[in-house]
Amino acid sequence: MSERIDFTKGHGTENDFVVLDDPEGRMDLTAEQVRVLADRRAGIGGDGVIRAVRTRSAGIDAPEDAPEWFMDYRNADGSVAEMCGNGVRVIAAHLRRAGHVAEDRFALWTRAGVRTVEILGAPATPGADWSVRVGMGRSELTPAARSVVVDGHRLEAADVDMGNPHAVAFLPEGLELEDLDLQLRPPAADPAPAQGTNIELVASRGTRHVAMRVLERGVGETRSCGTGVAAVGVASALRAGDDSREPWTVDVPGGRLQVSWSADGEVQLTGPARLVADGTTLV
Amino acid sequence: MSERIDFTKGHGTENDFVVLDDPEGRMDLTAEQVRVLADRRAGIGGDGVIRAVRTRSAGIDAPEDAPEWFMDYRNADGSVAEMCGNGVRVIAAHLRRAGHVAEDRFALWTRAGVRTVEILGAPATPGADWSVRVGMGRSELTPAARSVVVDGHRLEAADVDMGNPHAVAFLPEGLELEDLDLQLRPPAADPAPAQGTNIELVASRGTRHVAMRVLERGVGETRSCGTGVAAVGVASALRAGDDSREPWTVDVPGGRLQVSWSADGEVQLTGPARLVADGTTLV
Repeated sequence: MSERIDFTKGHGTENDFVVLDDPEGRMDLTAEQVRVLADRRAGIGGDGVIRAVRTRSAGIDAPEDAPEWFMDYRNADGSVAEMCGNGVRVIAAHLRRAGHVAEDRFALWTRAGVRTVEILGAPATPGADWSVRVGMGRSELTPAARSVVVDGHRLEAADVDMGNPHAVAFLPEGLELEDLDLQLRPPAADPAPAQGTNIELVASRGTRHVAMRVLERGVGETRSCGTGVAAVGVASALRAGDDSREPWTVDVPGGRLQVSWSADGEVQLTGPARLVADGTTLV
Repeated sequence: MSERIDFTKGHGTENDFVVLDDPEGRMDLTAEQVRVLADRRAGIGGDGVIRAVRTRSAGIDAPEDAPEWFMDYRNADGSVAEMCGNGVRVIAAHLRRAGHVAEDRFALWTRAGVRTVEILGAPATPGADWSVRVGMGRSELTPAARSVVVDGHRLEAADVDMGNPHAVAFLPEGLELEDLDLQLRPPAADPAPAQGTNIELVASRGTRHVAMRVLERGVGETRSCGTGVAAVGVASALRAGDDSREPWTVDVPGGRLQVSWSADGEVQLTGPARLVADGTTLV
């Protein structure tokens, strides 16, 4: 890297990011820079890199009426990504902290289109928990679309499309989330979609409350996955015959989130964001 | 964490550390703070935390004539450790960069006693590669002390004591380092020492040049292990009947190091250190 870069490290339910503040689009962020920044041992470390840039300065095609701020999300391998449900909360906290937005409720432009965020709680100090609600778009659920095979059990799985594909399977009685070794015995979708799928394994924890583990497509098990949590909330409500639109609580290894629905049926994800440290790379 | 903490993130052959500059011993660093700092997703992330503190201000028992600076090394789980061969290079670079030491050659106090470091190369900018030689103490080698079983092969292993235990095994022809899946099929020492042992697997790469992979006791495979590299250098020279005391080059997944011997027979480890970023935790 040939110049110093200011960054903020943040996470949402332990899905963690290197956040770059680039309001005027002055950075020419290369895939190689992203890989170095996201490298957990040789760099700063994160699941991804988020550049906060004004949409009109981002050098991208966007509609005239697109929101002021663009979430330029990059995967740790340097590739671009459409969206990241946990990352949206973190960039929202960053934008408010930096004074770039003054409102509690605002829209963001992402490669998946507009996302609406609402800051429900701003902490007295930036490193404590923010609470942010994010509109995740609409869901499309196909019941019993396929099976997920896990530890020799064949479980019926619903397909949930949240802009990306999810296969959501509920564990039967006697099979505990905590007992599954997903690394030694990774679950598989059957039939496996050509483009792959994220897999969620879900256990009931009480009224409108589930716990889940998630295997992200091309990554393996992670501590949290925003779209996966939304997919599990949708599938859980349908499975329980719950059309009350009351929020569901979803526990992931990295924390706790809520899934709810807006008046017009958009799926909403509410959870914490935490800004951990500010820093500057050395060259 | 109840107060902001300034830190530097650094690594030596991708063995990475959160470095805290605390010359006057003002920090009361708790195990919980260490765990939070070292957490790769919820914190800054590192294999360990190194506090640079003047020995007389460190609140430890040390001899009257102990070196001025103490390397207070903590494992990521919050426990204290004696020493870290890659960490010594990183704290040496930090001390020079901070202006705490002016010499190229100086001694450090560690929980394993005195370590002598020599800065062979200081980069023009602090984020580039420093080159540092570290005295690792004396080695004690017991040939054919035990076996290491890896992928169905039983390999003869030497025990090398570098202050901590190592079982060093050379791969036979036809077994490649790169082909071993050490996660799915972890190698095991037989007999297994009661206190456990680090395991090194070594392949020849030419004259005075080997490559290795290492499983650290209680951790699993890592990108680099300073004492393990020293142990492999010692075992390789003995195995080759090389008593020339010429340096051996040892490749690890995280980079390249040299093992040499001082005039009085101390094992020396030379390798890179890199200071990646400066930062401040948020609260």
